[in-house]
Amino acid sequence: MPPGDLETLIRLLARLPGLGPRSARRAALHLVKRREGLMVPLARVLEAASESIAACSECRNLDTTDPCGVCADPSRDPAALCVVEDVSDLWALERTGAFRGRYHVLGGVLSALDGVGPEELGIAALVARARAPGITEVVLATGATVEGQTTAHYLAERLGDCGVSVTRLAHGVPVGGALDYLDDGTLTTALRARRPL
Amino acid sequence: MPPGDLETLIRLLARLPGLGPRSARRAALHLVKRREGLMVPLARVLEAASESIAACSECRNLDTTDPCGVCADPSRDPAALCVVEDVSDLWALERTGAFRGRYHVLGGVLSALDGVGPEELGIAALVARARAPGITEVVLATGATVEGQTTAHYLAERLGDCGVSVTRLAHGVPVGGALDYLDDGTLTTALRARRPL
Repeated sequence: MPPGDLETLIRLLARLPGLGPRSARRAALHLVKRREGLMVPLARVLEAASESIAACSECRNLDTTDPCGVCADPSRDPAALCVVEDVSDLWALERTGAFRGRYHVLGGVLSALDGVGPEELGIAALVARARAPGITEVVLATGATVEGQTTAHYLAERLGDCGVSVTRLAHGVPVGGALDYLDDGTLTTALRARRPL
Repeated sequence: MPPGDLETLIRLLARLPGLGPRSARRAALHLVKRREGLMVPLARVLEAASESIAACSECRNLDTTDPCGVCADPSRDPAALCVVEDVSDLWALERTGAFRGRYHVLGGVLSALDGVGPEELGIAALVARARAPGITEVVLATGATVEGQTTAHYLAERLGDCGVSVTRLAHGVPVGGALDYLDDGTLTTALRARRPL
């Protein structure tokens, strides 16, 4: 039986997504064996991040400043808004460098099962931002899951009378993807949306 | 791109076993969303455990005291030593409550590939403990992997002239295991080691 502090550490680690009781035990032992190199720095950065990181009051991105770095950057295109499910999606899009507008983080998707409705996602705030003068395009970049698609359709409807063009990410064959590994749905979509070369 | 503290947090989380860059990002976001309930307590317990937890100088178990709770417990059988690879194996055996002696944690297995020899595992210290007056049995509870078996055989040889009986865990059909899901090696061993009912 692990002693007090270790048992608490294991219990808390087991609550992280991707770790169960067994892998949490393994992670805790890994930490104890790398006290100076990993355990102490991790304690420090958790402490620091818990104080410094907050949601941007404009777009709900996470950053040490409010408004966040993206919202505060004067070189970003003020006419385009990109709606994402979560901050990790924002990071993924930023890694590509392909979008130069600003973001709106929903913090989830519509889900009747989990009791997540338009109020929980703060969709009124998004509609208000889309109505602001200067905004010409809202890119819906929710996932291609059932919930992501449902949310995108709902948003398209809500944004219909805001006087902005509402677009969404293209579906198709992932770059580098072999056709025979792809699911039928993606292939059908890619074929229907084929473009002249 | 995650801001400074979050990026450091993700980089450190990704070094835990079982977490890669993607799941570390997910875990970091999970933590930020549960600041008071998870992130702050985790920072505190990591800090506390990094100071309170140390290896027992007798058996190398991890505990807040030295000697550890098991070594210091006067009700434990002083005649039996159980050799395990890691502290997690000690915890697993303690959960069963089936062993009432004391332990010796190797901290690994012999592995020529990883450069782990008898010196790295401190096998001399184990031999010294086994030679101490009063010890009558050493149970080898290393894993049934190739390295675990090699280590057990090496230990059996080194402990041969210590005047103790050297035993090891039985191999066989796991309790609750269906025969047709078992590998051939386990079935063969279980058949060879069959016992009268």
